Amino acid sequence: MIKKSGATSSLSLHLRLRIAGREKVALGPGKVELLTFLDETGSISEAAKRMKMSYMKAWSLIQTMKPLVQSSRGGQAGGGAKLTEDGRQALELYRKMEDDSLRACQSSWKKLQALFPA
Amino acid sequence: MIKKSGATSSLSLHLRLRIAGREKVALGPGKVELLTFLDETGSISEAAKRMKMSYMKAWSLIQTMKPLVQSSRGGQAGGGAKLTEDGRQALELYRKMEDDSLRACQSSWKKLQALFPA
Repeated sequence: MIKKSGATSSLSLHLRLRIAGREKVALGPGKVELLTFLDETGSISEAAKRMKMSYMKAWSLIQTMKPLVQSSRGGQAGGGAKLTEDGRQALELYRKMEDDSLRACQSSWKKLQALFPA
Repeated sequence: MIKKSGATSSLSLHLRLRIAGREKVALGPGKVELLTFLDETGSISEAAKRMKMSYMKAWSLIQTMKPLVQSSRGGQAGGGAKLTEDGRQALELYRKMEDDSLRACQSSWKKLQALFPA
């Protein structure tokens, strides 16, 4: 999921935010997309399907985001999961950072587009 | 070259801006790094070396940024190149967009960090 700014020319601006921990990505476009689908479906397997990834892959990504997701064993469709209050807040903050960033870019972005031939 | 915000915890925030044309990347971290080295060295081969890429690869990337770079045939070290006025402006605008984005993220970024265990 790459945040894209409305383009006024044939050019488009793409922004990616990645939060890195000591060794790996703590939160980036992929995990945010997974959290979003989890929030929408409440199901790990359904979220995995939408991400076109295996259940195991989705499950293990979720294990790296423990404070953000609360999972329940079993249940229909192979285990439910929902965002914790922290998880929902993290998702909102991440999206706000994307939006605020793009907004902050707008005036320079317009000038930059003018430098490229149509 | 990924723009990184000063981290106050073990987490760090990374931002990538990419400007896409109809088919390919018009300007992104790689091309910006190449332009920066070109500006510093005035030499395609020296810039290629710093990028750890072949001369041909650097040369062909430069061909995709025609209005931003002015290259001269031959010369010492296999051809010189310098940024045009538009090129220098594009570089400045790109960096300003990175800086402005990160600045716009700061307050949400602090809140987001607090949601992750240290």
